[in-house]
Amino acid sequence: MKLYTFFRSSAAFRARIALNLKGIAFESLPVQFAKHEQHGAQYLAKNPQGLIPALDTGDAVLAQSLAIIEYLDETFPTPPLLPGDALGRARVRSLALSIACDIHPLNNLRVLNYLRKQLAQDDAQVNEWCRHWIALGFKAIETSAQQYSTSGKFLYGDAVSMADVCLLPQLFNARRVATDLTPFPTLAAIGQHLESLPAFANARPEVQPDAV
Amino acid sequence: MKLYTFFRSSAAFRARIALNLKGIAFESLPVQFAKHEQHGAQYLAKNPQGLIPALDTGDAVLAQSLAIIEYLDETFPTPPLLPGDALGRARVRSLALSIACDIHPLNNLRVLNYLRKQLAQDDAQVNEWCRHWIALGFKAIETSAQQYSTSGKFLYGDAVSMADVCLLPQLFNARRVATDLTPFPTLAAIGQHLESLPAFANARPEVQPDAV
Repeated sequence: MKLYTFFRSSAAFRARIALNLKGIAFESLPVQFAKHEQHGAQYLAKNPQGLIPALDTGDAVLAQSLAIIEYLDETFPTPPLLPGDALGRARVRSLALSIACDIHPLNNLRVLNYLRKQLAQDDAQVNEWCRHWIALGFKAIETSAQQYSTSGKFLYGDAVSMADVCLLPQLFNARRVATDLTPFPTLAAIGQHLESLPAFANARPEVQPDAV
Repeated sequence: MKLYTFFRSSAAFRARIALNLKGIAFESLPVQFAKHEQHGAQYLAKNPQGLIPALDTGDAVLAQSLAIIEYLDETFPTPPLLPGDALGRARVRSLALSIACDIHPLNNLRVLNYLRKQLAQDDAQVNEWCRHWIALGFKAIETSAQQYSTSGKFLYGDAVSMADVCLLPQLFNARRVATDLTPFPTLAAIGQHLESLPAFANARPEVQPDAV
């Protein structure tokens, strides 16, 4: 498989973790944001959304990190990234979506660029915007984690899931804009544990071939 | 089942469509945004995220519209809202997520309130912001629809799916901020067809009990 990736993309980070967890060998194809390659005709022909990541399975190119992760979970079932029961799957998907819909897209590069250029916001205001949505989202996820994390090692139950795959990249983003994580001790502890796992550690932005 | 809903919420609109498609009788529990009930202790105890919708199944309260729809699809399989093959499911999820992650959350009420209050943007700038993200997202989805909609009636193939469940509410939002839909003829035609189906028509904001 081939993954169109960008080292700092939180959504690509999720896809890398999922591929690593499934033990799938993949080739990283870095998309050069500095050259705006994500908006170039060549990439748009692969992924009309012009967003990162996209997974080339050999048969098709798939977009949207959560769709990619669900696809990998269906086609490479071990280890599962969703619980075995419908209610558990709903809980895990809800946690994952609360990051993937309601935190991350608000702090995506294209949105921050709009705030800077079209709305003339300075770096301090842009970082404050990022921290606002992260803190709001994390507050709810911290509450859920206290309820659903039985081990304190994973967001749901005592096994890795799609929710953890979304959490660690969002914690990285949170740190990058100096978010105060002290109100979220459960999330911080889970993040620390996840980072100790090779599948997560090897997917970190700073160890990617295109890291600068 | 009971659905915590708000007539104008695009995400609640999705949940209402899915419940209608599955033929599930449900009670609407309107959350009064004018009274900020979504941030009140009573609702937060049900859904810590303080977002709409939430589905009370009798056994549990589920949050996040796409997690709710996947749960309904797993527990009430007919009619299916996802295709029978893994690649098809990935395509449909990708289309749904391209709306649910990369268009809708940017134009959510809380975000527009932040633009107005914290960033002192006026109505014209806020509407321009909304139209920008809608047009950008719809451009990609129009391209995908031209490729995947075999009938011109549904976003993927020739059957209703989770992608359609996300599309119609987003088309409603697009019209509300006067988005020019002429560049998206495939989406407009699909929307027109969806609106003719009772499951979609009966979920429209204006026919909800809390509509004002």
